[in-house]
Amino acid sequence: MNIKEIINKKRLNKELTKEEISYAVNGFVDGSVADYQMSALLMAITINGMTFLETLNLTDCMLKSGEILDLSKIDGTVVDKHSTGGIGDKVTIILAPLLASLGIKVAKMSGRGLGYTGGTIDKLEGIDGFNVSLDEDKFINQVNNINMAITQATANLDIADKKIYALRDVTATVDSIALIASSIMSKKLASNADLIVIDVKVGKGALMKTKKDAIKLAHYLIDIGKNYNKKVICILTNMNQPLGYYIGNKLEIKESIEALKGEGAKDLMEVVYSIASIIISNVKNISLKEAYELAHTNIENKKAYQSFKKFVKEQGGNLDKFKIDANYVDIISDKTGYISEIDALEIGKISLNLGAGRLNKNDNIDYNVGIQLLKKVNDRVKKGEVLGRIYYNSENFDFNDLKKCFKFSDHKVNCETIYGKIDA
Amino acid sequence: MNIKEIINKKRLNKELTKEEISYAVNGFVDGSVADYQMSALLMAITINGMTFLETLNLTDCMLKSGEILDLSKIDGTVVDKHSTGGIGDKVTIILAPLLASLGIKVAKMSGRGLGYTGGTIDKLEGIDGFNVSLDEDKFINQVNNINMAITQATANLDIADKKIYALRDVTATVDSIALIASSIMSKKLASNADLIVIDVKVGKGALMKTKKDAIKLAHYLIDIGKNYNKKVICILTNMNQPLGYYIGNKLEIKESIEALKGEGAKDLMEVVYSIASIIISNVKNISLKEAYELAHTNIENKKAYQSFKKFVKEQGGNLDKFKIDANYVDIISDKTGYISEIDALEIGKISLNLGAGRLNKNDNIDYNVGIQLLKKVNDRVKKGEVLGRIYYNSENFDFNDLKKCFKFSDHKVNCETIYGKIDA
Repeated sequence: MNIKEIINKKRLNKELTKEEISYAVNGFVDGSVADYQMSALLMAITINGMTFLETLNLTDCMLKSGEILDLSKIDGTVVDKHSTGGIGDKVTIILAPLLASLGIKVAKMSGRGLGYTGGTIDKLEGIDGFNVSLDEDKFINQVNNINMAITQATANLDIADKKIYALRDVTATVDSIALIASSIMSKKLASNADLIVIDVKVGKGALMKTKKDAIKLAHYLIDIGKNYNKKVICILTNMNQPLGYYIGNKLEIKESIEALKGEGAKDLMEVVYSIASIIISNVKNISLKEAYELAHTNIENKKAYQSFKKFVKEQGGNLDKFKIDANYVDIISDKTGYISEIDALEIGKISLNLGAGRLNKNDNIDYNVGIQLLKKVNDRVKKGEVLGRIYYNSENFDFNDLKKCFKFSDHKVNCETIYGKIDA
Repeated sequence: MNIKEIINKKRLNKELTKEEISYAVNGFVDGSVADYQMSALLMAITINGMTFLETLNLTDCMLKSGEILDLSKIDGTVVDKHSTGGIGDKVTIILAPLLASLGIKVAKMSGRGLGYTGGTIDKLEGIDGFNVSLDEDKFINQVNNINMAITQATANLDIADKKIYALRDVTATVDSIALIASSIMSKKLASNADLIVIDVKVGKGALMKTKKDAIKLAHYLIDIGKNYNKKVICILTNMNQPLGYYIGNKLEIKESIEALKGEGAKDLMEVVYSIASIIISNVKNISLKEAYELAHTNIENKKAYQSFKKFVKEQGGNLDKFKIDANYVDIISDKTGYISEIDALEIGKISLNLGAGRLNKNDNIDYNVGIQLLKKVNDRVKKGEVLGRIYYNSENFDFNDLKKCFKFSDHKVNCETIYGKIDA
């Protein structure tokens, strides 16, 4: 077996064997396969695709490149939640304490942002003193004690994914269902929760641009899970406009706190409640409606918010002096009408340019900057009203860029937040 | 403009602009585009292809990455000949002195072998003392003095091609009509002859497996030439069996000398005479038949052979003690019938394993080893007769490998050597 023949086989759109996939992945991890060879293989995979069996074998090989977390010391069902990445997606920060407040154990490893998508770890790091690097013992103990913990993935889990993802990011090979599915599932299987709910974002600001692709990805995720006796449920949600009103690290913490206090944006809370209901009904073996009631109650009575505060304190964070440290400028509408679209991808790029995100893995970010939307899709706007607000610390932006993200119509448009749920 | 967007555009099978192609190629040459990014782009090009315009722009950009040879100091029409690479292809070594003996100026830059294909430079280096590295002045003076010179390409010509080819070789991206056309033509345009004849090999032992692909490549080569006011003529020839009887560096020199003495193999001489006739008729403005007669005469009267000896001496070579320094073993047929096929690709691989070729660019080769075919397609063979001979210095071969290359039939098969000529 040699790597040139393996690359060539995929170039010719033939199915790779488990042995060939292992040879490539293990060789890349140990350095015997060069990065320029791996990127050629990744491009061939991205263009020609992979069968489900190839994707499963790739996932397995990546999973076994590192350790697998032992969660047996946590009593009861352990839950994990993942999003394929969207703009303004702060669902985890609201959902996890909500579930914890209901006695459900959430053991979550999150990532940092890269490109125009944000990362939960970056957002939490916007809280003064917050520790995002828990060791395994601390992580497990905290889940046992306060029902939740969020940490960045430890270096010894899924080593292949870290190396492959870094390469995909710089070679335009992110956009592949097989590579996305294997990356997500190898990480999720390494973190080893019992129930995994994945929010598959669909639309302009998401990796999956169409529902068709999102459904295909969802089935790959679910079926990979089945092979490891893990229950995976996918929910398909709209990413044609940013989720909620705020985009940016600390701005999203601010919005999460408001949501936990019962003042969350409509679309944001729809996603939170939908995922919460699925998880609660599964863990507690009750109906979705009963599950929703439990979730809604714990937002209203602030028990979820209490859980959040406990969680922040437990990981060393201090919310006392929490404030957004940035200048801001308002963007004024020069049109009248209904908002028909807010280009999530462009909003993500503006936020990235403001400094809220990183172009390269080791870039520093500015936690304070970002964007606030004053209007959302189907809101009525009059000329002269404020559309959005830019929080900035360097003048690396153009008013018009944000203004152009808002599309107008003379009538309301169809705009559902939740497309559906895909179960095993 | 950034390289990720350019790679992504080609991944999505869109046409790249001249500026985008320049950005990628120049960036790769100056190091700002990483090899893993270039290999991803090359894979996207190999799978999705390039339009003629893209290929032309790529060629232009590669051509301009280095110097262009100034052949104005050579009087009259300067001729160059190129082969897309085959097994046992020693045509240049016979053709160039034949043309020189007729007063036609041949200024040829050749390459070394990589993988299972040989290189003229390696073959010539099999001659004791032969200098394959002429500087520009010596090269031009020699063409003026004895009508021919063969040297390896100087380092300052077509710098992009050298870098790109090295990467293609290890990333399974050799097999692309656009990349083959731009690589050949950027080199040929940099060597700057007036008339360029390209032998496009077709078949199992060639890059082009089908006549359809070979014809497409030929048209790309001719049309690129037109854009620089260079006359390019392509000839399509059979590479479903090795050319002539010998494969291996010194073995091919031995066969070339026999051919120049009038004892050349039928198929080999068909290719030599076909290309010679095309060139002679073009340069001397006579008919192909008249051109053929001139060529045939100069083989028969040994004037071509005299030119060859002059050429070898001029480049420091010494043929006095020329002999094949290797052990040999004969492969005996265990069947009776007509040979219907001799797998050129497999023969090339056996020769490579014997040490006649190099797997990696910096490998050493053994000039003495190789293969002699005793039978060719449509020869009648009896069980017990010798099919071929292996010349070896290490026992890195299996009798059966060579035996398996010979396919049998109970009748003769169609086997033409020359498929046709494609002219502007």
